[in-house]
Amino acid sequence: MASTSTNGAAAGASTSTADMTSKDYYADSYAHFGIHEEMLKDEVRTRSYRNSIINNPHLFKDKIVLDVGCGTGILCMFAAKAGAKKVIGVDMSNIIDQAKIITEVNGFKDTITLVKGKLEEVDLGLGPNGKVDIIISEWMGYFLLYESMLDTVLMARDKYLAPGGMMFPDKATMYISAIEDQEYKDEKIGFWDDVYGFNYSCIKDIALREPLVDTVDIKSVVCDPCAIKQLDLLTVTKEELSFESDFTLNATRDDYVHAFLGWFDISFDACHKPVQFSTGPHSRYTHWKQTVFYTKDVLAVNQGDAITGRLVCKPNERNNRDLDITIDYQVQGATASSGHMEYKMS
Amino acid sequence: MASTSTNGAAAGASTSTADMTSKDYYADSYAHFGIHEEMLKDEVRTRSYRNSIINNPHLFKDKIVLDVGCGTGILCMFAAKAGAKKVIGVDMSNIIDQAKIITEVNGFKDTITLVKGKLEEVDLGLGPNGKVDIIISEWMGYFLLYESMLDTVLMARDKYLAPGGMMFPDKATMYISAIEDQEYKDEKIGFWDDVYGFNYSCIKDIALREPLVDTVDIKSVVCDPCAIKQLDLLTVTKEELSFESDFTLNATRDDYVHAFLGWFDISFDACHKPVQFSTGPHSRYTHWKQTVFYTKDVLAVNQGDAITGRLVCKPNERNNRDLDITIDYQVQGATASSGHMEYKMS
Repeated sequence: MASTSTNGAAAGASTSTADMTSKDYYADSYAHFGIHEEMLKDEVRTRSYRNSIINNPHLFKDKIVLDVGCGTGILCMFAAKAGAKKVIGVDMSNIIDQAKIITEVNGFKDTITLVKGKLEEVDLGLGPNGKVDIIISEWMGYFLLYESMLDTVLMARDKYLAPGGMMFPDKATMYISAIEDQEYKDEKIGFWDDVYGFNYSCIKDIALREPLVDTVDIKSVVCDPCAIKQLDLLTVTKEELSFESDFTLNATRDDYVHAFLGWFDISFDACHKPVQFSTGPHSRYTHWKQTVFYTKDVLAVNQGDAITGRLVCKPNERNNRDLDITIDYQVQGATASSGHMEYKMS
Repeated sequence: MASTSTNGAAAGASTSTADMTSKDYYADSYAHFGIHEEMLKDEVRTRSYRNSIINNPHLFKDKIVLDVGCGTGILCMFAAKAGAKKVIGVDMSNIIDQAKIITEVNGFKDTITLVKGKLEEVDLGLGPNGKVDIIISEWMGYFLLYESMLDTVLMARDKYLAPGGMMFPDKATMYISAIEDQEYKDEKIGFWDDVYGFNYSCIKDIALREPLVDTVDIKSVVCDPCAIKQLDLLTVTKEELSFESDFTLNATRDDYVHAFLGWFDISFDACHKPVQFSTGPHSRYTHWKQTVFYTKDVLAVNQGDAITGRLVCKPNERNNRDLDITIDYQVQGATASSGHMEYKMS
């Protein structure tokens, strides 16, 4: 997940990490080491960044590199090890105080400069019209765009990236499919029908609207995946992050469908040999897991049937780090049905 | 865990649950159904409350009952089913909007009154000097007192409980022991010595200070438990929640000690037949798990040795829902050693 505060007001900014209370952590959740522990221990994530940087010294040698949302400074250190002349890391969370210690202890005091604050407001020390050669960032959120800091990365690109400069990563693709998930849907949604003998169905309606971030077994997937959005980080605009996408999901067997499933793939195409990873159900575990969108009704599909539909995804109007997602769908074939679902990732 | 907002400022108060964004949930985390799902599905917790209430209609019949931090209203409905004449539930979280629907759908409109707000500020409709016969509350936090709402429960008791009235639960006991935990300590603490080849030891120091809430296998426990604090909910004062306690832990085998372990037991002694549950490592899983306090050094103990020491526990000065805990210890015997650890639950 992206390493920046989840709250525009950096309420903990005047408090050192050691003195932070739970109230400060609510305002600056990325100050807590636990979230960085989870991200660092996500080896698919961290090794992909490491390999894309460390194995490409020809790209990094003597370059100026900007790390947007640097967290504990791990990507900055990879870039420095790959030969970068200068690495600037920016983060608005108090975790950057630890990053300063870490980068210094590891001998990067002269190469890595860390700047606390919002990228929109800080001085990167590049001088007037100063540019960087490469922007690195681990900005991805659940379902790629939830709580992501892609907006900030794009702003950094437009303001600081030199012509011909590179983005790490530079490609992202979002996918959906459909899954059989009777047992877990009963546990998560059906549960509210009878809670110790009481009817809690008003919670069921709320639970259905909230996509669930969880790991899904590939055996549960009953349709071929369909790409719904491709992002070229060198060219995509903030406006393009609100999108509508038609999809067709072809059923690979006779089964029931209880939910749509979303995930994303990431690629570092600028590398000599592209580095890629997927957060899909066919791939190794990542902390992004997958995102499950339960449907109200159970769909029946036969092998060869198509589920067609349209997914609309846009930032919530009141909080642009939340996502409003709608899915309209129709099952074609002998078991024809259709539906409309509105989801909120918040 | 206790069902109240974690933040004094009820930022989400003017927003309905359906419209809440992630920012609102940061200010009112108990508004999210997920936390109530976890608590309701904790069967040790919920069944203990149910049994203590439902199986004692002789105590509840025609009584006035107050539920402090009522959440989704489950305890209110238990009390109503047990024959209470009137049940008043109070919660400052938006979840109470759902509780209103739930209690009404389940036919308790005339028996259960739900009041949104801080207990210190709301009108319970009891009239001047109005009292209640029984206070029920699920106020317990991790290590009993972290983020607990016991302060509020005691305030409610002093203000509203009739002479001779009852508290559900009415007893709580905190315990510590010591555990062998080499493998997981390496993973959680040792990890920071070498993060992809970099020295992250400044995070190690922070991680050591933070107690870890997790399940511990009874096989890891190397000492007999020692009770460090007993609370009689009918009489305990807020001041007594800051405490110092000497402990003696007798080693039951030759082993190493990597951490102290804390947990608590709860009892409903007012029942015809007392209902009790434990959150200890010898008991069935609860969402409170146990609390692990890693020591900096590894201690060696021989069977029959005693680890003596003193534990000090008090609310953090800047945020009284956080806990400051210090543990001083000495290993007596052939492998004598001693240490001083300062922890922060935040």
